Amino acid sequence: MKPITEEKFESILKFLEEKKIDVLMITDYENSRNVNLQYLSGHPTDATILINSSGESILIPWDVSLAEKHSEVDEIINPANFSFNIFLAMKELFENRWKKSSITVGVHSMTTYGFIVKMKAIIPGIKYFEEPIQIKQVFDKVRATKTEFEIKKLLKAAQIGTRTIRDIQDFCINTPDGTEKDLSFIVRKKIADYGGDDVAFEPLVANSSRAHEIHQYPFASDQRFGLPGLALIDFGVKYQGYNSDITVPISFGKLSDEQNKMRELAIKSYEAAIEIIDIDVPLWKIHDTAEQMLKKGSYSMPYSLGHGLGLTVHDSPSISRKPTDEYSKKHWKEETIQDGMVFAIEPGAYKQGLGGQRLENDFLIRNGKVEIITNSEPLNF
Amino acid sequence: MKPITEEKFESILKFLEEKKIDVLMITDYENSRNVNLQYLSGHPTDATILINSSGESILIPWDVSLAEKHSEVDEIINPANFSFNIFLAMKELFENRWKKSSITVGVHSMTTYGFIVKMKAIIPGIKYFEEPIQIKQVFDKVRATKTEFEIKKLLKAAQIGTRTIRDIQDFCINTPDGTEKDLSFIVRKKIADYGGDDVAFEPLVANSSRAHEIHQYPFASDQRFGLPGLALIDFGVKYQGYNSDITVPISFGKLSDEQNKMRELAIKSYEAAIEIIDIDVPLWKIHDTAEQMLKKGSYSMPYSLGHGLGLTVHDSPSISRKPTDEYSKKHWKEETIQDGMVFAIEPGAYKQGLGGQRLENDFLIRNGKVEIITNSEPLNF
Repeated sequence: MKPITEEKFESILKFLEEKKIDVLMITDYENSRNVNLQYLSGHPTDATILINSSGESILIPWDVSLAEKHSEVDEIINPANFSFNIFLAMKELFENRWKKSSITVGVHSMTTYGFIVKMKAIIPGIKYFEEPIQIKQVFDKVRATKTEFEIKKLLKAAQIGTRTIRDIQDFCINTPDGTEKDLSFIVRKKIADYGGDDVAFEPLVANSSRAHEIHQYPFASDQRFGLPGLALIDFGVKYQGYNSDITVPISFGKLSDEQNKMRELAIKSYEAAIEIIDIDVPLWKIHDTAEQMLKKGSYSMPYSLGHGLGLTVHDSPSISRKPTDEYSKKHWKEETIQDGMVFAIEPGAYKQGLGGQRLENDFLIRNGKVEIITNSEPLNF
Repeated sequence: MKPITEEKFESILKFLEEKKIDVLMITDYENSRNVNLQYLSGHPTDATILINSSGESILIPWDVSLAEKHSEVDEIINPANFSFNIFLAMKELFENRWKKSSITVGVHSMTTYGFIVKMKAIIPGIKYFEEPIQIKQVFDKVRATKTEFEIKKLLKAAQIGTRTIRDIQDFCINTPDGTEKDLSFIVRKKIADYGGDDVAFEPLVANSSRAHEIHQYPFASDQRFGLPGLALIDFGVKYQGYNSDITVPISFGKLSDEQNKMRELAIKSYEAAIEIIDIDVPLWKIHDTAEQMLKKGSYSMPYSLGHGLGLTVHDSPSISRKPTDEYSKKHWKEETIQDGMVFAIEPGAYKQGLGGQRLENDFLIRNGKVEIITNSEPLNF
């Protein structure tokens, strides 16, 4: 089943009409994933989808039998009929069926440059809509508010994540010598036991010697997790394609004054942000509120405060600072909190040698109210 | 440590000179990964690297402390000095330090179109080298033969994979009611126990009702694995960044004539391919040999026969059919088997209702000889 609603699909067609785009193209391949393929078609992976301005949808999948099982489109083209060459399949479609002297193709900004250049070389009659960022923005806007179908799955992913926090706590108490990898495995196993399909991403498990790194590499190491200081685990659950995202800040042993300050700053920054979350509040203001709080304590946050949750872990909307260059300013529109949004908030304070603390929970906006749908809080052992 | 050797780096600089490219750019971000970042710099993820024609390398990482730990570059630029906006950081570099009236930037074909358009809008003085595919090809060529440093890690990844096959066998014998997910977990756990850092990709575990799908979705389900018919498990090991890739074809119970034929075809196709692997043999010929064998039995293979193994699971070289469109033909050069190549071969036969059989092992070309470095063979229970 495809997540997109009729109403949302119509708004995309309206955009195509306004911008005089004849064909919308979304590609999803290894190393250039684009979940809008699944959002539009139900087909999960490895395909190109083309939608013309009348709303006709054509899927060219890598695996036809998978497409027959999962996709809801008007037509599936079998690439085997074109020597497994999707460009030849598109050429035939554009030149012999969607005949026009010139076809304007709107491509998503995540399409690779190599694909763009090759397609134009093989199908010279096309031209590209010159602002791929606007295609991305249309999808980001449509996907920023979730349907009931999506919210149900997101709530389940959040619930499984919350349940797993108890196991993390047990690990810290009962396995003081356990490694980061051990904890990563337990989280993965429990998520499966509780009915999750998978982790949303490789759990980031970082003891106090690594927690300042923000995105750890490797995700989990063979080091002991319970070293004294500021540690954290950042994990999520995938349930029927939908994701939750949780970070538990954990401290072990007696903390220094600076470590206590970091811990408090992360919490205060989190509280300041959720304090102002409400319908119609601009998203950049929420980011700024959290960032100002960190700055007061002389800490900074190199990333955006929050992000939507959906078919990706980093979904729309983005809860981030205002744009800083002219190009982004030109394309920026202020977004505000709206019913149907589901997102994570994750401020933190980090310093090499001391560790890191990040507190992250997931939120749902429903019937004008803010619901906190996960239950992470700072732990201390 | 960066995997690239001085000699290989020089060959890239020579290419830049020949093509009059002033700056080479590789970007690696969420949803558009490019392992050439790590290959060139040692820095694993989330950064842009710029290399000018004199060989000066500049890294703009998302996480500066991670870069300080892992990268070997001439300079790290901290994006915090540019409001975390890498385009502004590049603008400053191009306009104030690498001054030229016009700078030609060679971008890898996997860079996203949105990045290309945005960069040009923010730094109007640049122009792009018009054939991004050639940048990809230079890296593919350089990375197609592995250094001793790389081969050591690849052998270890292969060895851990081979050891895990025994556990798959045990599972089939001792856990006849186990699910695909159960087997997936065991493989993951054993790989960790044997010293692997991670799975190379989510194991594809498919019973006879799903094995025709080739790339299963989901990767592993709650269904029983040991259903009668043709099943398979496709898995790999990541060891210090390097990958192995193995598929074990498994049959349960008595097979129909057609199922026996599929099983034999997959094996014959595999044997025909390895029969001709030798120094200087064109790669397309190996693909064709395997494909012809399948076609004789009225089966086809929608994918390429084989692929290199390295920092990615689908590394160069690609062992695949000759190109089928004019653009690809223009850019194609015949590649042949060479010392230092490490690759997987994976022919298979698939039919809905009957299942699928794919046999996949990994190969190393060393001192002019072909070594099979994994040990998968068809299993029957």
